[in-house]
Amino acid sequence: MDRILSSSLSEHIGKDVTIEGWLHKKRLLGGLTFINLRDRKGLVQIVIQDKKEIEKLRGLQTGTVLHVEGQVVKESRAPGGIEIHDPSLTIMVPVLAESPIEIDKPLNHKPENLDTLFDNRVIGLRNLQEQKIFRIRAGLTRLLREFLDAHDFVEMQTPKLVAGAAEGGAEVFKLDYFGKEATLAQSPQLYKQIMVGVFERVFEIAPAYRAELSATTRHVTEVTMLDIEMGFVKGIEDVLDMVQDMTYYALTKCYEQYADELKSWNAPKLVLKKKFPRYTIAQIHKLYTENTGQTITTTKDLTPDEEKWICEYAKERDGCEAVFATEFPLEAHKFYQMINPDNRQTVLAGDLLFRGVELATCPIREHHYDVLIQQIKDKGIDPNDPGFSHFLLAFKHGLPPHGGCGYGIDRLVEKTIGLNNIKEAILFPRDINRLTP
Amino acid sequence: MDRILSSSLSEHIGKDVTIEGWLHKKRLLGGLTFINLRDRKGLVQIVIQDKKEIEKLRGLQTGTVLHVEGQVVKESRAPGGIEIHDPSLTIMVPVLAESPIEIDKPLNHKPENLDTLFDNRVIGLRNLQEQKIFRIRAGLTRLLREFLDAHDFVEMQTPKLVAGAAEGGAEVFKLDYFGKEATLAQSPQLYKQIMVGVFERVFEIAPAYRAELSATTRHVTEVTMLDIEMGFVKGIEDVLDMVQDMTYYALTKCYEQYADELKSWNAPKLVLKKKFPRYTIAQIHKLYTENTGQTITTTKDLTPDEEKWICEYAKERDGCEAVFATEFPLEAHKFYQMINPDNRQTVLAGDLLFRGVELATCPIREHHYDVLIQQIKDKGIDPNDPGFSHFLLAFKHGLPPHGGCGYGIDRLVEKTIGLNNIKEAILFPRDINRLTP
Repeated sequence: MDRILSSSLSEHIGKDVTIEGWLHKKRLLGGLTFINLRDRKGLVQIVIQDKKEIEKLRGLQTGTVLHVEGQVVKESRAPGGIEIHDPSLTIMVPVLAESPIEIDKPLNHKPENLDTLFDNRVIGLRNLQEQKIFRIRAGLTRLLREFLDAHDFVEMQTPKLVAGAAEGGAEVFKLDYFGKEATLAQSPQLYKQIMVGVFERVFEIAPAYRAELSATTRHVTEVTMLDIEMGFVKGIEDVLDMVQDMTYYALTKCYEQYADELKSWNAPKLVLKKKFPRYTIAQIHKLYTENTGQTITTTKDLTPDEEKWICEYAKERDGCEAVFATEFPLEAHKFYQMINPDNRQTVLAGDLLFRGVELATCPIREHHYDVLIQQIKDKGIDPNDPGFSHFLLAFKHGLPPHGGCGYGIDRLVEKTIGLNNIKEAILFPRDINRLTP
Repeated sequence: MDRILSSSLSEHIGKDVTIEGWLHKKRLLGGLTFINLRDRKGLVQIVIQDKKEIEKLRGLQTGTVLHVEGQVVKESRAPGGIEIHDPSLTIMVPVLAESPIEIDKPLNHKPENLDTLFDNRVIGLRNLQEQKIFRIRAGLTRLLREFLDAHDFVEMQTPKLVAGAAEGGAEVFKLDYFGKEATLAQSPQLYKQIMVGVFERVFEIAPAYRAELSATTRHVTEVTMLDIEMGFVKGIEDVLDMVQDMTYYALTKCYEQYADELKSWNAPKLVLKKKFPRYTIAQIHKLYTENTGQTITTTKDLTPDEEKWICEYAKERDGCEAVFATEFPLEAHKFYQMINPDNRQTVLAGDLLFRGVELATCPIREHHYDVLIQQIKDKGIDPNDPGFSHFLLAFKHGLPPHGGCGYGIDRLVEKTIGLNNIKEAILFPRDINRLTP
């Protein structure tokens, strides 16, 4: 008999079926044995009365792989309203070792327990609640791609093994590449700008590497980034609009398609408008000071406190918990970003903030060859560095006004669900202290 | 006026429109200047009569970014049947440097010219013919994901920074990870098997790294792999069927959706049946010898010649140019694969061959904890190596029969289009001699 999945059993009431899965839980109750069997669709309860069948499970632990033939019975008290009665069990893979972690109830995600959580990841992920994080994650990446496909963005794969750390700044991982030095790409920044000259609109979802020395709730060494870049923009508003529409699409669809998963995590209710409010950094500083009484030096970037505060403020005042902070101070300027021609103390960039954190920085790039070279020099970098030659070539041969963003997938998942540490949103996270599992 | 894309101009015949793009080609003809403007949808021909407008283009080269306002006119002799007349030009970004590579006609893909092709990749990709490779590539990855989503496979991201080279064998890239040694993952093999215990069915499209010392048409150091893994399989036929159905879906849809792109590359006609023929390695050796007169030692793996030959044979005889070669000889056995219990000289693995090359190896894994440990020892590897501990834990706590494959995306693109070198299918290829652009 073909295997029936737990989600389809209600179509087979009264019939004999075959199900297969893992022993997820076992309890004894008045001479009966109740087991929960887990398959990829969820759990099904099996009631075993026959002593011979009960005996087969003696000494077997969670994780034991079972083949079960039995009758589907409607039972409102059972999870899913279905039970299997009179089962005949075949032990496909016996498990004798006790589970290193209890997977039948939600796992402990308290900060002090996260190391235990990740040490036991291989088994802990079998917890249904834990799985939901990664079903939502798969859903969000699918929805982001759907939106981008529908808006003429071409998906690409750019190299992660690169020559030199052309972006400069942050720490990079270096490796020996047949006698040359290679680095692991911190982002596809230069490649995606080059590709604007090819497809106008490109995107990539891929790992990016930061040799971060910090051990915080926000730092990992391997992140998954969605990078998008679009040409022929009339101004930063075009970029912000695209990022806004994409975020609105992915989040609202995610809340529809993963309602149960989000609910089981007590994810916050989604408070979103189609148009995300936009405040300049200067406005946010002013509003923050007026509302909290705390003074912030007005030329600087937002503090983490302000990022949290403005999201709360926009949620209450504008009915939207995603907000753009615009007109970044010059201190945050990177060589490839365009300085605001109307106010040369600011950069044409906007941060997408959501639930208190930055999800993406969305700058307009400097697309004028001569200005770009000058900006590289101004940062004390040599534009003749071989790591730049191909990048600069794209500008020498014509790139239109363009902009884009690097969008943190891990952070999006973390904040959508309401987790507190980026690592909780990553299957097998990597940080300064963790290279396994 | 909002910008109209070249593909939508036919909806605006007789009207004034704004178009933007790159100067792709310029010719003078009887006092008129004809230019082709390239945008993300293709080319549009612009006829310039006004001397003042013609003058604006003096000295400007391919790549110059233009904003053009003009009238849409039907003209059957123009590409796309549309022309722009009486244009008013604005030079958005002037390009004075001559293009390092002629992008108006198909680029030279002859083996001796490939280095030039890749050295000039940044500009060469602006060639419309060249772009098609990467549009087809984006399409194939989208179609593969579509199929896998529809068959309950959960997309995941596993780490590429790993401790040790647990798979052993091939060369790996090593790097310093905060004083520890890390390697770049050669494949997500161990992680995807672990994840069978979580979701039953998982997949990942991600880079994989091989420190390949060989410089051939088949070797690159950074490949894009589709890895899939599925649990509760009844036998290798389940895995082969899934890989077959996925390949059939992606290729037939690709040939529908990218008919023009494939035609412009003279891609071979697709000769595929829903059920791919399956031959054992022994059968192929025998058939090859019978048909070609050349003898092959019958216990060994297929030679490259045989791989080519069997695809041709299956195409003619079975009407299908995708074929599975099954029952691999024990020499090819990896520790995590299952030895055929019915013939312990063979491994439960099947290669998917397409147009003469192997696209994927699809083995059944050894899922019995004790047997797996023995197989690791038999390969001279220490099962207590820390790189294995988490992998083995998944088996200790129950993994069902499972199998899957690593499917080379670069090769699939190469062979679908009919290219001759894997690097032609990669935006910015990496090999022993190439780390740029």
